[in-house]
Amino acid sequence: MVRLIPRETKFFRMFAEVSTNLTEGARLLHHILQNPSNIVADVSKIQDIEHRGDEMTHNIFTTLNQTFITPFDREDIHALTSSIDDVLDFVNAAATRLVLYKIYNPPPAAAELAQIIVVQTEELATAVSVLEKTQLMISHCVEINRLENEADRVSRKAIAELFEHEKDPIQLIKFKELYEVLESATDKAEDAANVLETVALKSS
Amino acid sequence: MVRLIPRETKFFRMFAEVSTNLTEGARLLHHILQNPSNIVADVSKIQDIEHRGDEMTHNIFTTLNQTFITPFDREDIHALTSSIDDVLDFVNAAATRLVLYKIYNPPPAAAELAQIIVVQTEELATAVSVLEKTQLMISHCVEINRLENEADRVSRKAIAELFEHEKDPIQLIKFKELYEVLESATDKAEDAANVLETVALKSS
Amino acid sequence: MVRLIPRETKFFRMFAEVSTNLTEGARLLHHILQNPSNIVADVSKIQDIEHRGDEMTHNIFTTLNQTFITPFDREDIHALTSSIDDVLDFVNAAATRLVLYKIYNPPPAAAELAQIIVVQTEELATAVSVLEKTQLMISHCVEINRLENEADRVSRKAIAELFEHEKDPIQLIKFKELYEVLESATDKAEDAANVLETVALKSS
Repeated sequence: MVRLIPRETKFFRMFAEVSTNLTEGARLLHHILQNPSNIVADVSKIQDIEHRGDEMTHNIFTTLNQTFITPFDREDIHALTSSIDDVLDFVNAAATRLVLYKIYNPPPAAAELAQIIVVQTEELATAVSVLEKTQLMISHCVEINRLENEADRVSRKAIAELFEHEKDPIQLIKFKELYEVLESATDKAEDAANVLETVALKSS
Repeated sequence: MVRLIPRETKFFRMFAEVSTNLTEGARLLHHILQNPSNIVADVSKIQDIEHRGDEMTHNIFTTLNQTFITPFDREDIHALTSSIDDVLDFVNAAATRLVLYKIYNPPPAAAELAQIIVVQTEELATAVSVLEKTQLMISHCVEINRLENEADRVSRKAIAELFEHEKDPIQLIKFKELYEVLESATDKAEDAANVLETVALKSS
Repeated sequence: MVRLIPRETKFFRMFAEVSTNLTEGARLLHHILQNPSNIVADVSKIQDIEHRGDEMTHNIFTTLNQTFITPFDREDIHALTSSIDDVLDFVNAAATRLVLYKIYNPPPAAAELAQIIVVQTEELATAVSVLEKTQLMISHCVEINRLENEADRVSRKAIAELFEHEKDPIQLIKFKELYEVLESATDKAEDAANVLETVALKSS
């Protein structure tokens, strides 16, 4: 059991808020990759979500630095918040590249990777909502890690196919980077899950 | 107010020294990108500055590990020093790529990015020189963050134009990496500013 | 002298185990790059070694979180373990790229870089086996840092030659990334050595 100090429940509210915001960003990215008809406006919405996430992250850090007793170790609160922020940064980076590189017909593997990110962020939101229920929380972390392996497999396959079939090097550079950025988002979600597992271990 | 322990002012002297060295490196990089006539010799000077920076960084870490009472949290001294060192690493990496990739006519956007790095490192040097004046210091950190956003905008525009107009993929690879390395330097300056803001928050 | 708490020697056993596993992976990578005749099966063996390394790393973190008194600072145990794991991740990433990018005739500079990684991992294994003998341990760390500089030189030269002579951009992308991944492995070995030096400094 995490030793929950009641008056510090504000951190749990803030984790819930930042995770919900991340899930929203991931879902919009997946939507764009499946329906790129409105790409410029939709990507701009993801950038707004990312700015909102930055502010939430900043607020958590400020609160952390001004709070004496925290519900779990300060460095873990910091690492968890940073990792969640990093996932959203990569979600935004993927979206931004669509506009920057004029990828108006994203390859199917990109949508597949974004779908994995969506499920990971949903699992993450659930995990932070059951932080005090150690066993249940860990089961969600295990699922996040499994999804990272899955994303790794999908991204490797997509990159191998790119090198196999894409003869235009500039096109190859664009798509390869898109896959890599998407895969990095899943790595960061795994980082967040690893912090949560550490918190669980310390409290058991 | 940072609780300044007088006999630990050596850290402040060392921060001043390492920031001044960084500014020197950034200015030389900007000079090269505007005046590439003497590129090989000038890049070699930046590498010397980077080696000097490594030694200074190493000295701060040694002092830190041998000092019991520090002017602010040890992990923040460590993080600040590492970030300043990282900025110089990327300044050096950009310079080195000019020689390695034989970029003897650097694109104007590279000089523009280097100019942003110069101003950031000047702001950083000022910020560490007014560490005890919290409000003043924070205003310099805010400026460093604003400059990072500016660099982000410049670098994205430059990369988009590269994909738009550069038909030689190998040339595109070279310039894209140059822009990305320069942009990374500004990210690391932002990291340093974020550590300084954390220090200010903790002391308020 | 590191203040060795006898009953925590399990950490030293675990460091030995994880370092030996890493050395095995590095040697196999070097073998493949010199003898790529059995590349698919050999790369699959490296992936097994990497999975084993992941489990060992996870075990160290679990033990760390459940141990009250540690032989040296917890964050240093964490950082050392992470760095060793990162070296193996990059060894595995290099091996995986051989299959993914169908590099069946790896360039000689890749084998040269892998050979440097082998020596670094041997030095690292020795360093963690003499953790209590500060001076001796530091001499191995110095050698690991020297080898990183050497790898940097080899990799820069190889990349410069690639830009000089390789006219096929897709081939250039493949080889450049292979060199960079190999060089990153040596950076992570240097990170591990830096943690060991920190541990030595704190105990002196």
